[in-house]
Amino acid sequence: MQEKLARLKEIGKELTLLAHTGSLLGWDQETYMPSSALEERGEQLALLQGIEHDKLTADEVGELLAACGVTEENPMGNADLADLDRRFLRSFARNYWNETKIPKDLIVKFAKQRSRSQAMWIEARKTDNFSKFAPELEKNLDFTKQIAEHLGYEDHIYDALLDRFEPFMKASQVKKVFAQLKTDLGKVFEKINSVEQVDDSVVHRNYPIDQQEAFGKLVLEDMGYDWDRGRLDVTAHPFTTTLGSRDVRVTTRYEENFFNSGLYSIIHEGGHGLYELGFSPEIQGNILANGTSLGIHESQSRTWENMIGRSEAFWNHYFPKLQEHFPEATKGSDANSFFKAVNKVHPSLIRVEADEVTYSLHVILRFELEMDMVSGKLDVKDLPQAWNSKMKELLGIVPESDANGVLQDIHWSMGAIGYFPTYALGNLFGAQFYRSMEKELGSIDALVEKGELKTILGWLQKNIHAPGSSLTADELTRKVTGESLNPQYFTDYLDSKYSKVYGY
Amino acid sequence: MQEKLARLKEIGKELTLLAHTGSLLGWDQETYMPSSALEERGEQLALLQGIEHDKLTADEVGELLAACGVTEENPMGNADLADLDRRFLRSFARNYWNETKIPKDLIVKFAKQRSRSQAMWIEARKTDNFSKFAPELEKNLDFTKQIAEHLGYEDHIYDALLDRFEPFMKASQVKKVFAQLKTDLGKVFEKINSVEQVDDSVVHRNYPIDQQEAFGKLVLEDMGYDWDRGRLDVTAHPFTTTLGSRDVRVTTRYEENFFNSGLYSIIHEGGHGLYELGFSPEIQGNILANGTSLGIHESQSRTWENMIGRSEAFWNHYFPKLQEHFPEATKGSDANSFFKAVNKVHPSLIRVEADEVTYSLHVILRFELEMDMVSGKLDVKDLPQAWNSKMKELLGIVPESDANGVLQDIHWSMGAIGYFPTYALGNLFGAQFYRSMEKELGSIDALVEKGELKTILGWLQKNIHAPGSSLTADELTRKVTGESLNPQYFTDYLDSKYSKVYGY
Repeated sequence: MQEKLARLKEIGKELTLLAHTGSLLGWDQETYMPSSALEERGEQLALLQGIEHDKLTADEVGELLAACGVTEENPMGNADLADLDRRFLRSFARNYWNETKIPKDLIVKFAKQRSRSQAMWIEARKTDNFSKFAPELEKNLDFTKQIAEHLGYEDHIYDALLDRFEPFMKASQVKKVFAQLKTDLGKVFEKINSVEQVDDSVVHRNYPIDQQEAFGKLVLEDMGYDWDRGRLDVTAHPFTTTLGSRDVRVTTRYEENFFNSGLYSIIHEGGHGLYELGFSPEIQGNILANGTSLGIHESQSRTWENMIGRSEAFWNHYFPKLQEHFPEATKGSDANSFFKAVNKVHPSLIRVEADEVTYSLHVILRFELEMDMVSGKLDVKDLPQAWNSKMKELLGIVPESDANGVLQDIHWSMGAIGYFPTYALGNLFGAQFYRSMEKELGSIDALVEKGELKTILGWLQKNIHAPGSSLTADELTRKVTGESLNPQYFTDYLDSKYSKVYGY
Repeated sequence: MQEKLARLKEIGKELTLLAHTGSLLGWDQETYMPSSALEERGEQLALLQGIEHDKLTADEVGELLAACGVTEENPMGNADLADLDRRFLRSFARNYWNETKIPKDLIVKFAKQRSRSQAMWIEARKTDNFSKFAPELEKNLDFTKQIAEHLGYEDHIYDALLDRFEPFMKASQVKKVFAQLKTDLGKVFEKINSVEQVDDSVVHRNYPIDQQEAFGKLVLEDMGYDWDRGRLDVTAHPFTTTLGSRDVRVTTRYEENFFNSGLYSIIHEGGHGLYELGFSPEIQGNILANGTSLGIHESQSRTWENMIGRSEAFWNHYFPKLQEHFPEATKGSDANSFFKAVNKVHPSLIRVEADEVTYSLHVILRFELEMDMVSGKLDVKDLPQAWNSKMKELLGIVPESDANGVLQDIHWSMGAIGYFPTYALGNLFGAQFYRSMEKELGSIDALVEKGELKTILGWLQKNIHAPGSSLTADELTRKVTGESLNPQYFTDYLDSKYSKVYGY
């Protein structure tokens, strides 16, 4: 059996090398590739994905998994194997089933539909015409449901969709957690609305881009990001990508007259990057060297971006350095005013522009609509109406157009239904981990104020990053915090922080 | 049979996509990859090469070739097929045989030996100790000869080695051509040595690097290189790499106090790049979309670099622009002095630093030594002695150390025996094509003087680039010039040019 396991690990290693090669094709496309190469780049990526698919779904893999005692009832295989090996088997089997259960023919048809659907979505958004996108979304929904049926689920069809992005989590748990979150966020939001708005004009002054880059790099270095293992480049949409266990690159975009855009993208992506660089050596280059779920991944980016990077302690430490980089723009401001400015809360129509308090409400809205669509309670044709009334209910505002409403996100046009919840789950996981970290390290604010960000990274590496996907999100959460996901920590954190920002 | 051919083309397309993906891995490694990623990058490349190997040597390929009527006696296959398809078959079969005739076990052993040998070569060169490298070179020679025996040859064992880099050319032809070249170059060299040396101090002044880049880009654009299909980056050693039929990138290196280094690397690599971008649309993305031989490839880079970029006409056109970019460095100089300065001839110990006249002598020396080694006339232990006496004979100088003599090139440590001749063949092909171009377009100098470089590119594209490897080097040469390779054109060109530079 050890031989079979060794062979599976070899295949896993090859799959990892291929995935990282694909990431380079993608990274290059967004950064340095000449424009005329786009079409051929698509062909290169498709070929590589086809090779990965064939390697993962080969008969040999099924036979090896079976020889290691893996079954759907017993995904960790033979109990005599070492614990980490059994976790490797669980992860490998999951990938294998996800790839083999869906007929190839369906995958190909769906890929074609998605590409048409994305083109129609772009058109629909440009012309603010939902009816152009509606038939495509209906088809995407239909394909998605077929896929869910192939993947299988016990309770709710949404489980199968959610599981692709947030493995092992159930819709019922999200529903329960989001219900509480909705109520609690509403209360914080109400308190903020009852007092005077903060002045954030300072972040809209002129910030020269070369200095933004220098300042961002300084913060990344303080966080423990290492230029021998990564890079920072500029792209239209910021992202993080893993090209090797010692090669994880981040990108950002700068706006000369809006400071938040560049720095907070850098810190956010840096958080993702440090997670990917922090897997323990025993799983590096292995399929366990992956984020265990998108929610956990997002917890790392958002903890760094919001809980650390938008804290008062952060600006107490960094404001003098900010002044050195931007003597003009920071004139007349101070650490406390800057802290308040980067934390301004205001309900907006667009999710990606939302602040820390209202962001999760945008996500909850999308989750509720998705649940209603997949369970047949909501027709696609009625979606704009449902969107607008939920916006009114949750955020108190209604978009003047579908382009700024139901048509704003790319996800549904890509058939990514079940993805949105992970964004909000990240906030919740992050706040819960933060509390445990504080129990062990003492005041995190005190560390941040002294610029000791690497102490924080050390804790995160040891507790959150090292296991990779050998622990599921829930196993990790229970191990680190002693309980399953609990939204209370996040709302407590928000309430405490925003009482300082808004003085309510 | 058309179906079989279509399937072969599909496989050829996939092989091309994989090769281009491998090129991206290599390009990134030399440009932007963080240093810690090196080892894993090697694994990614090795895996991709393994996948290519398996795809190319699959039983299916052998069967498809046979079904198209391809045999060793009839490599172009069934005579009923279209001419271009038959050329495709010849090219595909060549790759297939080269990859299948050598036992995989031998390839793996040789790869390991090469990697040890390269490490020992670096060590030997650093400590100026040939005896450390000698046993490795002996092993490389032994492996190389084994490979030659597997590949097969009719006349001389060197034919099989040369053929890997300069397909279809024979050692006897190189020997004959080089014999004439040696005599003729010697005469030109003697004339130069009989008159006063030119003053090239102007190219050793201070040239700010950002201006070198701007000037280099301007020349590349004039040559017809298109930024939508390429890029210019900086690397330790300049190179050109093809990442797609519309994505061919070049690199250079700049020296602040030596102007030639940056610009002439840019023009040289630009020449390679334009060749790769010039294949006719009917073979793009196909295995025929490749340079037909290294010699022909080098003819393109050297024609642009030397015959055009180092011409008096070039500096008549570009000197005013040079003055705009470098008002300080060009002070007191003029087009004619600059033309002479970039063409200074002096015998040097190092091939890569050699001028246009002595360069080919360095190559001839290596070819003659290689011939003697593979045919057993020269023992590896006697190589330094043989090197030094040939240096004396050809260039009139003797290296004071093996590090600057027999140990200077990486090629033998990589087992690349048979490669060197292609460097000098490039000069010869280039001069011969140039003469035909002039017959059709009239004075090339007149075009260059007016800055009409794109007219030159147009002719090269139509006549040299478009066919890719559908024509062999000899077929191409005979088609374009009406005769086989003839070194006379090159020495005539040199004699005429250097009589102007040196006024002999």
